[in-house]
Amino acid sequence: MSLTGQQLIGYEYSQQGKQTFTGINPRNNEALSPIFHEATKNEVDLAVHKAHEAFKIYRRLSDKQKAQFLEKIAEEIVEIGDVLLDTASLETALPIARLQGERGRTVGQLQLFANLLKEGSWVNARIDLAQPDRTPLPKPDIRQMEVPLGPVAVFGASNFPLAFSVAGGDTVSALAAGCPVVFKAHPAHPATCELVATAILKAAKACQLPDGVFSMVHGLTHEPGMALVTHPLIQAVGFTGSFRGGKAIYDAAVRRNIPIPVYAEMGSTNPVFILPEALAQKKQNIVSGLTGSITLGVGQFCTNPGVIVTESSSESEAFIELLTSSVESSPSGVMLTAVIKNTYQKGIEHLSMNPDVNVLAGSLPHTSDTEVSSYLLETTAQAAIENPALLEEVFGPSSLHVQAQSKEEVLKLAESLQGHLTTTIHGTENDLREYAELIDILTQKVGRLIINGYPTGVEVTHAMTHGGPFPATTDSRSTSVGTNAIYRFVRPVSFQDLPQFLLPEALQDKNPLDIWRMVNGEYKK
Amino acid sequence: MSLTGQQLIGYEYSQQGKQTFTGINPRNNEALSPIFHEATKNEVDLAVHKAHEAFKIYRRLSDKQKAQFLEKIAEEIVEIGDVLLDTASLETALPIARLQGERGRTVGQLQLFANLLKEGSWVNARIDLAQPDRTPLPKPDIRQMEVPLGPVAVFGASNFPLAFSVAGGDTVSALAAGCPVVFKAHPAHPATCELVATAILKAAKACQLPDGVFSMVHGLTHEPGMALVTHPLIQAVGFTGSFRGGKAIYDAAVRRNIPIPVYAEMGSTNPVFILPEALAQKKQNIVSGLTGSITLGVGQFCTNPGVIVTESSSESEAFIELLTSSVESSPSGVMLTAVIKNTYQKGIEHLSMNPDVNVLAGSLPHTSDTEVSSYLLETTAQAAIENPALLEEVFGPSSLHVQAQSKEEVLKLAESLQGHLTTTIHGTENDLREYAELIDILTQKVGRLIINGYPTGVEVTHAMTHGGPFPATTDSRSTSVGTNAIYRFVRPVSFQDLPQFLLPEALQDKNPLDIWRMVNGEYKK
Repeated sequence: MSLTGQQLIGYEYSQQGKQTFTGINPRNNEALSPIFHEATKNEVDLAVHKAHEAFKIYRRLSDKQKAQFLEKIAEEIVEIGDVLLDTASLETALPIARLQGERGRTVGQLQLFANLLKEGSWVNARIDLAQPDRTPLPKPDIRQMEVPLGPVAVFGASNFPLAFSVAGGDTVSALAAGCPVVFKAHPAHPATCELVATAILKAAKACQLPDGVFSMVHGLTHEPGMALVTHPLIQAVGFTGSFRGGKAIYDAAVRRNIPIPVYAEMGSTNPVFILPEALAQKKQNIVSGLTGSITLGVGQFCTNPGVIVTESSSESEAFIELLTSSVESSPSGVMLTAVIKNTYQKGIEHLSMNPDVNVLAGSLPHTSDTEVSSYLLETTAQAAIENPALLEEVFGPSSLHVQAQSKEEVLKLAESLQGHLTTTIHGTENDLREYAELIDILTQKVGRLIINGYPTGVEVTHAMTHGGPFPATTDSRSTSVGTNAIYRFVRPVSFQDLPQFLLPEALQDKNPLDIWRMVNGEYKK
Repeated sequence: MSLTGQQLIGYEYSQQGKQTFTGINPRNNEALSPIFHEATKNEVDLAVHKAHEAFKIYRRLSDKQKAQFLEKIAEEIVEIGDVLLDTASLETALPIARLQGERGRTVGQLQLFANLLKEGSWVNARIDLAQPDRTPLPKPDIRQMEVPLGPVAVFGASNFPLAFSVAGGDTVSALAAGCPVVFKAHPAHPATCELVATAILKAAKACQLPDGVFSMVHGLTHEPGMALVTHPLIQAVGFTGSFRGGKAIYDAAVRRNIPIPVYAEMGSTNPVFILPEALAQKKQNIVSGLTGSITLGVGQFCTNPGVIVTESSSESEAFIELLTSSVESSPSGVMLTAVIKNTYQKGIEHLSMNPDVNVLAGSLPHTSDTEVSSYLLETTAQAAIENPALLEEVFGPSSLHVQAQSKEEVLKLAESLQGHLTTTIHGTENDLREYAELIDILTQKVGRLIINGYPTGVEVTHAMTHGGPFPATTDSRSTSVGTNAIYRFVRPVSFQDLPQFLLPEALQDKNPLDIWRMVNGEYKK
């Protein structure tokens, strides 16, 4: 199919503005075709109004109808064929094999939410039956379930052009919840965005869904995105990206006349703690695993392990030596965009200029115009506790080894951490028993605690929390991956003394949907 | 027991500041004893630090231990005896019988949360078992549950000195979640606050809980409250009160370096729609019910029906005539505070000066210094649509009748509504079928939809939503009444590949707590 470079406003193309941009091939910094048009404020407004109108119909659809839509989207994405992978690879420099995996993840994610809807119990149906004889006052019949919030604005991430982009977790969970989506395409992969948006709209048409259930607007500047976030008819925002971007969106959303929730996943450094006995026993294993995790996808993962903590010992020295040569010898790679590459290089430069930081692996300046190498840096726990900025994310294939002098210093460092998506502990059973307090402290700081594994690789499943305390996200009570992501886009409504014919099916006496419900406080089917 | 007028900072009394105030008897505007000391910034800081320390222990308590604490609080509140009711009545002018009911509600609420904890399934345990043989990569074991956020600041409401105050729904749900509470006492009933706070601290001592699991600070000015909301160690805020107060707290919380969630329930006008056939058939019934609901507790309920919508007809005219004389003949009453009384009178004056508003019942100026009378005012749907400010809350025993010319105008008015806690529809089966669209529109606007009932009277139960879209609350995804209120103070954490001995009991293979869990997507016990 040929690309238009236009906004997809519901079922219509639109190209009102004069601002244009193109995708850039990060492998050679050359402009790609076609030319994309930045959305005007008017186009954003049109997309949101269509979403608002579509919501009137879409919110009343049954879960089964929404499930069909999600499955159809999955089908249409596969239908695009290899051109999707080729386009994404051209725009992002990510290898085809990785994009194949990401497509599988995206399609699997759609299917997971479709299954959630088909099962139906996600609506949290609760029924408290009337007690007409209660004194002094009769107890009314009260029934509660989740209802969708309304049109949702979604901002995709650059580092997952499929799984965290147009048909990624935010879009899918919002559509599953019953919310139309206006998607702000990522300017680093606009062609990939158009391909996937077209697939979603094909699926919407095939399911005879209302115009506006999905729209996509382009923008290289912040303006279209800000117009979206501040639009009075937008009811929630999903975002994956940088702290700066996410925080700006949060700040705008909470200052609206009617504030709205913002679910911004802004990344973290995902500290890895390696405890003494594990360090002695599994040195080589951990070095291989960590190097893989640090350099995976040229380090462009939200869950990249950016901080590695050990306690000073001869074993630790040997470990760091091994890790240094492993990182040193890992291949260089092309990052997603020139901006990301420059930010990475500046971040490394900035860190390495700090008198408390040593560069163990990696060398400045870079020899290639487009490729970057991996870095291992080192500092002390004391320095990191005194200057927490040392532990801030440097997005890319680097990690900072933090040397602690004692268990006490490890605990102190852990206490000083800000919020992260994940933390990992490598330990033998002895280690883990001895460091119970560390585990307890770290649980307060993160959305996911990993034992003897690696943080990259976020399972799309029911029990996943891809979230965490600020600044990892703007809302620690939510996840952007896994089925719980749907709860970001709904709110509970109670129905008091409604006759059966007025009740949603999920709340009717006969339980026609055959879902799990809490009846007078007990779970029943 | 004798009252001290001091801060209760954990288990210690404190009186560092020089600012003082007293409760005022609203029946005669006379000062009550004792003298209360406004908390200093230092005292607030001390209370929060104690809460932070207490959290380290309190968060690890079992649900059963926390349940015992809540039950013990209930016991200690009953133990206070009649002096609690007498004190509250003196400070608030609420009658003893009403306060007796409110104490019952408060104690029942504690028991409900204790039962929730004893049952245990509220933690939302989810287990996705490992698949070591999965290709291309093995699937790890992932288990998720809710964990408490940390110290919570709670602001009580003036209108429920027991049920929405010191040991009210916010405090109880936070303590149930595992969060220590620093309570900002309401200056309109400080003595009642001290009595209940003392009961909580007695219970905490009896349960050998750490110093700081509960503290209470006083303040007539906004300063102690703001010091609390902006304290870096406070992790969430619960508030019930005015829009101005709640919004100011929200604005401060979202501007912190680390923003925190604010659950402010700020009231609403709870529109009541009376459909034509019901109007014709049940006129007298609805008039009695509505008058009772409007004047209950001198109209000082968050769910007071402040707007009544009918369609123009001879039946509607007859209905309004009946309602007018019913409201006119309802007894006058003493409001909670002189400020609330003045605000009510100014609100009525302001509304009645609007050329589009007629005063049907009630007369200005007021004849009594302390008592207020009930009002019924009237306007047209057209005026209300053009000027939504007409529908803003006037806290007190008044209601605004909104006359619509047609069904279309009713729908248009419904569409124009902002967020409310509740809405009520009176209708026969014919009415309800004919006005399906109205019901659908209104469901988007509220937290609770009531058919053929009255909004006052909020059941404390599993299926209750006492919440709603902004400006009814600052977070429509939450409720401040009912067991779901606990979810405001927790966040999910995932545990990946943890050995059994490290897992919380709720997530261990053997399910030692015998709770409902989602295992590989299926609910199981």
